[in-house]
Amino acid sequence: MKVIKFGGSSLASAQQLEKVLNIVKSDPDRRFVVVSAPGKRNSEDTKVTDALIKYYKTSAANQDVTGIQNWIITRFHDMISELGLSEKLAQNIAFAIQELAKIEIEGNDFAYDAFLAAGEDNNAKLIAEYFQKNGLTARYVHPKQAGIIVTGEPGNASILPSSYDKLEELRDSDEILVIPGFFGVTAQGQICTFSRGGSDITGSIVAAGVKADLYENFTDVDGIFAAHPGVVKNPHSITELTYKEMRELAYAGFSVLHDEALIPAYRGRVPLVIKNTNNPSHPGTKIVTKHSGATFPVVGISGASDFVSINMSKYLMNKEVGFGRKVLQILEDLNIRFEHMPTGIDDMSIVLKAKQLTPIKEQEIIDQLTRKLEVDEVSIEKGLSIIMIVGENMKNHIGVMETAARALSQSNINLEMISQGSSELSIMFVIKTEQEEEAVRSLYQAFFGEK
Amino acid sequence: MKVIKFGGSSLASAQQLEKVLNIVKSDPDRRFVVVSAPGKRNSEDTKVTDALIKYYKTSAANQDVTGIQNWIITRFHDMISELGLSEKLAQNIAFAIQELAKIEIEGNDFAYDAFLAAGEDNNAKLIAEYFQKNGLTARYVHPKQAGIIVTGEPGNASILPSSYDKLEELRDSDEILVIPGFFGVTAQGQICTFSRGGSDITGSIVAAGVKADLYENFTDVDGIFAAHPGVVKNPHSITELTYKEMRELAYAGFSVLHDEALIPAYRGRVPLVIKNTNNPSHPGTKIVTKHSGATFPVVGISGASDFVSINMSKYLMNKEVGFGRKVLQILEDLNIRFEHMPTGIDDMSIVLKAKQLTPIKEQEIIDQLTRKLEVDEVSIEKGLSIIMIVGENMKNHIGVMETAARALSQSNINLEMISQGSSELSIMFVIKTEQEEEAVRSLYQAFFGEK
Repeated sequence: MKVIKFGGSSLASAQQLEKVLNIVKSDPDRRFVVVSAPGKRNSEDTKVTDALIKYYKTSAANQDVTGIQNWIITRFHDMISELGLSEKLAQNIAFAIQELAKIEIEGNDFAYDAFLAAGEDNNAKLIAEYFQKNGLTARYVHPKQAGIIVTGEPGNASILPSSYDKLEELRDSDEILVIPGFFGVTAQGQICTFSRGGSDITGSIVAAGVKADLYENFTDVDGIFAAHPGVVKNPHSITELTYKEMRELAYAGFSVLHDEALIPAYRGRVPLVIKNTNNPSHPGTKIVTKHSGATFPVVGISGASDFVSINMSKYLMNKEVGFGRKVLQILEDLNIRFEHMPTGIDDMSIVLKAKQLTPIKEQEIIDQLTRKLEVDEVSIEKGLSIIMIVGENMKNHIGVMETAARALSQSNINLEMISQGSSELSIMFVIKTEQEEEAVRSLYQAFFGEK
Repeated sequence: MKVIKFGGSSLASAQQLEKVLNIVKSDPDRRFVVVSAPGKRNSEDTKVTDALIKYYKTSAANQDVTGIQNWIITRFHDMISELGLSEKLAQNIAFAIQELAKIEIEGNDFAYDAFLAAGEDNNAKLIAEYFQKNGLTARYVHPKQAGIIVTGEPGNASILPSSYDKLEELRDSDEILVIPGFFGVTAQGQICTFSRGGSDITGSIVAAGVKADLYENFTDVDGIFAAHPGVVKNPHSITELTYKEMRELAYAGFSVLHDEALIPAYRGRVPLVIKNTNNPSHPGTKIVTKHSGATFPVVGISGASDFVSINMSKYLMNKEVGFGRKVLQILEDLNIRFEHMPTGIDDMSIVLKAKQLTPIKEQEIIDQLTRKLEVDEVSIEKGLSIIMIVGENMKNHIGVMETAARALSQSNINLEMISQGSSELSIMFVIKTEQEEEAVRSLYQAFFGEK
């Protein structure tokens, strides 16, 4: 039993929907189809979700909504005619879009969510009918019927744990269920959306709920590349990745799925595969809890810029109980999250995302470290990048660090900081940003290049 | 102007004292001589300080002290006769030793310190007279006269900052001042000792106080070796080391001086040299605030065992503000100091000294991490060693990590954890203890061996 999710670009046109139909038809295990709103048909096009945002804003400003309303209705109608679907469906969708204008916006925290959700919701109705017309026993299911009950945080809903029991009942259906992604319903019946990119979350929740054997996430790339294609020329796509490896790679160039989308599938131990609607025979990248066999020691290399490091030293630092805790407390009081904390005996560096620091926060940190913790020296270094070499099988291979250090040293890259935890899941290097691309390229060559 | 300190083995016999005399005579800048109590003359001998401890215990138990009293007096008398010093000195020292028995021990927190200090104090009197007899203008100075005024913590005194002004007045003396090490006097006039090995502390305090150009610490080794001589065969002695490098190496095999002894000289910016009384022409190891020139990228390699690591992982750990701080708080509440904290995205290791963990504390840590911080996995790994590669000039040399990683990988050593802070002062590896000696040897060979 598989849950299959399609992104907006896979659902943008009649031509794309035909590919989707064929994919669903080709495997009888594909029983739950989670859909996004229609995406762009070409680079000049507008996503339906963006049009719905405009519709909301126009309505909120008490301006004439006819133009934007018609654009959205026409967008759906065009697909309906191209696919030869029913006039009844066209009327149903037009009515749903028009009804949005009646929503009281003033003082209604859920109004925006209701507008946005209409893209996924109406597309699911359309796709269900398209499937039926083409010989599949399919049915549209609203998240409320499916049992996707969420917390009442507009734009940032979380699934209620009790939802999973209700979702499990869907297993008994013998139809293909088409479920709109991106939103759930509160206990009070309000439409409430997940964070943006939330159709992936719906797919993940449904996969965990129905205890699927596989969650197939169809997008427009052949899976996850071992390095960013903008940096390395034609990197290979990774065959198998563990959830942990995926997290380590999450910094940059690997943002196919939001972390939040991975959680339900991860906790439900449902493997996930990222595949390409436009190239469905490609195996894509499978994300599993445990590797199926011995693989390369390294699975991927990521690089990300915009990090800073707070460097401090204090004589006899390592003899001071509580020093590290107090440093982190200062950051926490300023609501700053740190990424890494490499240490010597008497010095400590804290690596964090640059955007978390404002000039005022910087000054506050320096003041507090100097006055309260009486550090001997403190400085803030900017323009840093983090390079991650990731692979769960590194722990079974001696010499990964040697290979990495040789590649970086041959490219004349200075290693500002280094950290490798006992999980041996990844090695982190902090380097200057101007050397980031060169570092990723030389590491890719060292681990995956031709010998 | 130099402060020169001699350890117990340099002062154990008439023969040793002759070497000391020649060392002091050979340089007119050697104006302040800080002395320890007489050490062992041979491996069966007893240190005077240990005899004084026995004397104290016998006295505290109200037992007959004659035997131990006479042993100590004879120990000093033997040296006095061998050196041809005065009967008056012999009587003075005998009286001082006998008077100790009159100290009220019950309820007197300072009694133990008074007994112990007698070793250094009477040796200083002896050495001052020996210097005078041999043509030096020398004078014994009691710490009270010198101005070494300390806090009233028996066995763990700290110098009062105001002492330094009084000590500076000693600069005006045109005699060689012989000052007993190891103790000071409280504001109330009580003898109070530094922590054990405290003659080094006295030397460091005097050096900072008189604003010496150099603090010469004479011991029985040719300085500090670049690796432990018990592990590496005939390691070379380091010519120049910065205080920071000394601290990084402080883990093991480098404990020539206590950290506490370094602080006054470090804060007073007095360079320190460790030399060998038995080989005074050897330049020894100079410890400076800043390197005098370009040296090797690596100055020394240390290894130390008896570390454990607490390893934990939690999905989305790096998104949680305060997670690291909370982990360190748990340790701090158990009064546990950590050494290093290497991190991945979703995992964290805390490296600490094994002796800090009891089975109860271990259980408490695991419980709290599991219950309060809801980590997914936690384990405690034992039998770990820390290897440090140290050198301030590493930051100007690309490729140190490559050399180190190659050496370790060729010796088949698995790197459990790695950390290098932005100071680039040291690279730390955590490995299994059974591989520690092999790791140190292979790194020594890689950085200092013949090519």
